[in-house]
Formats: sequence, C-alpha cells, structure tokens
Amino acid sequence: MMDVYAKLKELNIALPEAPSPGGLYTPVVEFSEKLAYMSGCVPADIPGVRIKGKLGSDLTVEEGQAAARAAALNLLAVMHRDLSDLNRIKRIVKLTCFVSCAPNFTMQPQVANGASGLLIDVFGEPGRAARSAVGAPSLPSDVAFEIEALVELK
Amino acid sequence: MMDVYAKLKELNIALPEAPSPGGLYTPVVEFSEKLAYMSGCVPADIPGVRIKGKLGSDLTVEEGQAAARAAALNLLAVMHRDLSDLNRIKRIVKLTCFVSCAPNFTMQPQVANGASGLLIDVFGEPGRAARSAVGAPSLPSDVAFEIEALVELK
Amino acid sequence: MMDVYAKLKELNIALPEAPSPGGLYTPVVEFSEKLAYMSGCVPADIPGVRIKGKLGSDLTVEEGQAAARAAALNLLAVMHRDLSDLNRIKRIVKLTCFVSCAPNFTMQPQVANGASGLLIDVFGEPGRAARSAVGAPSLPSDVAFEIEALVELK
Repeated sequence: MMDVYAKLKELNIALPEAPSPGGLYTPVVEFSEKLAYMSGCVPADIPGVRIKGKLGSDLTVEEGQAAARAAALNLLAVMHRDLSDLNRIKRIVKLTCFVSCAPNFTMQPQVANGASGLLIDVFGEPGRAARSAVGAPSLPSDVAFEIEALVELK
Repeated sequence: MMDVYAKLKELNIALPEAPSPGGLYTPVVEFSEKLAYMSGCVPADIPGVRIKGKLGSDLTVEEGQAAARAAALNLLAVMHRDLSDLNRIKRIVKLTCFVSCAPNFTMQPQVANGASGLLIDVFGEPGRAARSAVGAPSLPSDVAFEIEALVELK
Repeated sequence: MMDVYAKLKELNIALPEAPSPGGLYTPVVEFSEKLAYMSGCVPADIPGVRIKGKLGSDLTVEEGQAAARAAALNLLAVMHRDLSDLNRIKRIVKLTCFVSCAPNFTMQPQVANGASGLLIDVFGEPGRAARSAVGAPSLPSDVAFEIEALVELK
C-alpha cells in the first residue's frame, strides 16, 4: 500500500475537520491489540453536497452517493485524528451503511458505493471491506447516510 | 476500575432478572479469547418506564432515554449471568443502538445516551464505547429500543 | 462437530450458487488470524420461496422465515466458496438480521429464526450465534431479509 497521505493528495482529496462526538460515545475504540471500531459517521458538511433528507423521496441516487462519499470523508478524518496516522490501517474489515429512505427505496447498495468506492480509491484492495447496506426510516439530524467501520491495524 | 458491583450499589442500581433468549440465539458468545458479543437486548420491564411504542409518535425523547436505560440494565443483567462476573469486562468496545421511530424522528443519539450514559456511570471511561445509533421502523415486541454490544474481557 | 458437508447431505440441503457481490465490497473478509466477516446476504432465489416484499404487509411470518432460511443458504454458499471449506468454521459468533417490514410488524425474531435455525441444524450448538433482529423500512432489491455474520475459524 502506498502512503495514504500521498494517495489522498494524488486523488485531490482534502480531509474535512473531524467532527466531535454527538453523544456519549468514543469516536474510535482500539481493542484486541490490532483492531479498531469507528463509531457511526454522518456526512461531512461539504459545499454543494446535500446531506439531509431521504432517498426515494428527497434525494436522487446520485445525491445519496455524494452524501455517502461525504460520510466516508468524515470517517477518514476521524481515523486520521484518533489513530494518529492513516498508514496504521492494514485493511478495512467491515462497513455497515445505513441509508435513510422511503419504504419503496431499494438501491441501498448503489448509494453505499459512494462511501466504499472512496475507501477503495484511498486504500486500494485493502479498502474493499465486507459490507452491509440497509435502509433506515430516519437517521440522526435527518442525515441521508451513516457509516460505521471495523478496521484492522498493522 | 473499581469493583463493578460496589459501583452498582453506590449508584443504587439493582439489576433486573436477565431475560431468556427470545429466539434461536445465544445471549452472549465469547470468542477470540478476550472478546464477547452480546445479542440485542430489549428494555427491562421496570415499573413506570414505558418500553413500547415509537419515538416521534408515541414516546417523548425523555421516555425513549428511560427505555434505553432499561435496555442497558438488561444488558448488564445478561452480562452478569453469562459472563459470571461483571469485573471480567475490560471495556465496552462497541454499541449498536436501534431506535424504533417515526420517519420524521431524528434524535436517535439523544435517546441512545440513556443507555450509553448508564454504562459510563457503571464502568467509567472504559464504558464509553464506539457507537452507532440509527432508526428502525419497528422492533421486536414493539419495544422502543434495542441495544447490542461487543465487549473486551480482561 | 461432524463434517459439515456430511451434515448438509443428511439434512438434504443443496447449496445454491454463491452470488457475486452486488456492490463495491468483499463477500468475506478474514482478519485477526481467526475471524471472518461475511457481508450482508440476501435470500437465494429458490423456486416457491417468496423473497421480495415486506413483512406485515406482503409476506406472512412463515413466508418471511422461508426467505430468512434462503438468506442463510446464500450465506453458507458464500462461506463455502470464499473460505474454501465450511469445516474451517469453529463457530458462528454473531448474526445481524434485518427484516424489511411495515411499521406495525413486531415479530422480527420469529422471522430471523428461519435463518438461525438452519445454521444450528448445520453446525449444531456452535451455530447458535449471538444475534440482533431488527426492522428496516426497505432492503436492497426489495428483498424481505438480509443477514450478515461474524464467524470464528479453527
């Protein structure tokens, strides 16, 4: 794996400011020597990206993908802040993607690709995690997407 | 960390009777030497606490927090029964909090704080887990809240 | 534990063809030496089994159980393909079961039993995992059930 920060630069990706926890939890918990669990991340607030509302009623699939990508950016920012160095990551093990949606929306995987595609761009194949993508009737602060991650460290 | 049972006494917390599994599963699975997964727990049936219905239509946020706290009590009761000794717990690694809610409810983290706050009270900072809090259109037996946990053992 | 393939034969269970990933993810990620995370699996397409629609409006609990069982068959098929040998599995640690349902449906555990019961039939008590079963307003491709799994390897 190449240096993650060089890769981010190559991809022209600037990390947003990592958000403070919005409740009684720890953003990243390291455990079992080489594992870390990342709390659910909502999308970063990026100009031009709609991050609130529901798929199937308020946002198109493309808008949902952009919101998902923005959530992955927050995830990267939190990992950078709390793991100190993104190069410590050996692989992304598992992602759980929650898509806020109307009951008739059935393209959760396509939306989630906006997040998991970014992680593959950044980490290469070690970024291609196991994944579940499911619908939720609503998410915190009305965001369209929330992502949590289990990662293995070097 | 002080003795967990002394802490419970100090906090005037009595553990409810641990519930039997409501399906084909094991309440607590120990694995990988030092880890344990706790199955989803619904709220303990505590006098004066509303544990059924949905946030955003039936229960206030404060009532939801009380239901979440009651679910954390069930979680503690199950850990006590199946891990034999709550002092075996090194830290709570990860909580997933499901909030039964109407599609317009967006305060899942505030509700989940009712559960995670109790665990921090009991275990101190090792109780401050990584966490996801998401909405669900409905939960088993119409409960308002369900919590699952990954814990690391000493 | 007896040979898993002998057990499948005894139970007259034929594994379906393992599905290709329906998005940017890896179906099975091995990590931490002896663990593996299986991505969310939708039900296998089995003649006579309804796998689309929602519990509480489109499918009966019995139909939901059949869909859940079909998802567990896909899970077995994917584990067989990607772990090479089902006998490598020491135990099923944790299942998360998502049930697509109407807001008034509250029998998620009964539906999930269709999946977890099959895994207990196949693996015996090591197949009796920790489990959460929750509702979702909708799932990928309108399936009624999705299951993900954490397993421990020998």
